[in-house]
Amino acid sequence: MTEPNAGLPIQDSPFARKLSAFVRLSQTDLAVMSDLYRRRRVFPVGVDVIHQGQTDQCAYVLASGWACSYKILPEGTRQIVDFQIPGDFLGLRSVLFRTADHNVEPITPVHASEVTQRDLLAAFAETPRLATAVLWAASRDEAMVVEHLVDLGRRSATERMAHFLLELGARLRLVGMGDRTGYLCPLSQYLLADALGLSAVHVNRVLRELREEGLVTFQKGRVTFEDYDGLVTFAGFDRSYLDHEGPLLM
Amino acid sequence: MTEPNAGLPIQDSPFARKLSAFVRLSQTDLAVMSDLYRRRRVFPVGVDVIHQGQTDQCAYVLASGWACSYKILPEGTRQIVDFQIPGDFLGLRSVLFRTADHNVEPITPVHASEVTQRDLLAAFAETPRLATAVLWAASRDEAMVVEHLVDLGRRSATERMAHFLLELGARLRLVGMGDRTGYLCPLSQYLLADALGLSAVHVNRVLRELREEGLVTFQKGRVTFEDYDGLVTFAGFDRSYLDHEGPLLM
Repeated sequence: MTEPNAGLPIQDSPFARKLSAFVRLSQTDLAVMSDLYRRRRVFPVGVDVIHQGQTDQCAYVLASGWACSYKILPEGTRQIVDFQIPGDFLGLRSVLFRTADHNVEPITPVHASEVTQRDLLAAFAETPRLATAVLWAASRDEAMVVEHLVDLGRRSATERMAHFLLELGARLRLVGMGDRTGYLCPLSQYLLADALGLSAVHVNRVLRELREEGLVTFQKGRVTFEDYDGLVTFAGFDRSYLDHEGPLLM
Repeated sequence: MTEPNAGLPIQDSPFARKLSAFVRLSQTDLAVMSDLYRRRRVFPVGVDVIHQGQTDQCAYVLASGWACSYKILPEGTRQIVDFQIPGDFLGLRSVLFRTADHNVEPITPVHASEVTQRDLLAAFAETPRLATAVLWAASRDEAMVVEHLVDLGRRSATERMAHFLLELGARLRLVGMGDRTGYLCPLSQYLLADALGLSAVHVNRVLRELREEGLVTFQKGRVTFEDYDGLVTFAGFDRSYLDHEGPLLM
């Protein structure tokens, strides 16, 4: 399986594009990132990238494809926590833990670079700027989980969906995979339902409502913003928690 | 207002006790932490420590007292995200962002050390081990928000309360503020209700149920575990996401 982004110079990779929102990457930073980005692995759909309970302290940088992180509860039900797109870490949250506290599985075939805890510590010692960039990425991941918590606690099903589609759009745009008109999206209604705490029937109804209001359409694997500003207002979407206005660290 | 933990050597501070769960702190690490821990400020109840929207890139390390972090939604409602206890960072999530994405307010009078973004970057450059320890702390904060997401999505009100009281107990024990029998807790039923997505009446009923089952009592500002193991089983509490079994980094 050929990697879609293979051969891109490191500074044009989704990984560098994303971290550039926080830090102006120096030649040293890029060289260290290039090392981290080298040990590529391929995961077909159905093969977990990270297992809850694993103890080998490993994370990945997603080079191409989509993944989702989820928790399995003691009685066997699952809760999707978030989706990952190119440039995102997989398993960053628990790479420093004795035991991984969540699972990551591919939604489409995934190319990802393996980063061990040892690699990460060595990289931080070489360039503390990159350490802060990784802390920034972790903070942004946490900010997204907080938004999802607010979703479940305080937003209606339709606002929740609108907010989610806007967030995903902003994240994809940062790594060059979408624009203000929309983006390609491989997520099924089943996955959306699980992530947003809705039933599949409810997802269907909410998407129809947003389409009929002329705000956004999600059909045939493409999200199309029909009225971007109207959708932002409807969802109460304030993207400052994604912190895309950088770089702050020069 | 005298600080309860004033005069403790840095290695016995809640800050060091907490990070010691991840890293065996060297003399250099402790010296850098001591600098970070120096610029102490006092916040009475009712004065925000961090405001959503502020742009001065500042965080704090909580030395004594309790705080809570929350989001204000566009229409003015609020959602509590988490509570902070001594040793925790306040505002870590957005110290690297252009704009703070949340608020932090004291629940009791708070003594906290101001840490600017510049301090943090300088500390990381001096000891990358501390950078990884801060990333660990951020990852653990995220893991807790994920558990709260699972709470809202998948746990009953009673399981949610049980899980929350156990998590808080484990966090407090790590910094020497509780044991297997219980802990002092200044949280009102109103705060618990907001954090757990319940009404105050519901909180009252759920606490009565846990008490009548002989599992845990929360009365007069003290949480008492009547049957710790029974409560763990009831809540499906697997504390590996708190990663207290360290240190991993020697």
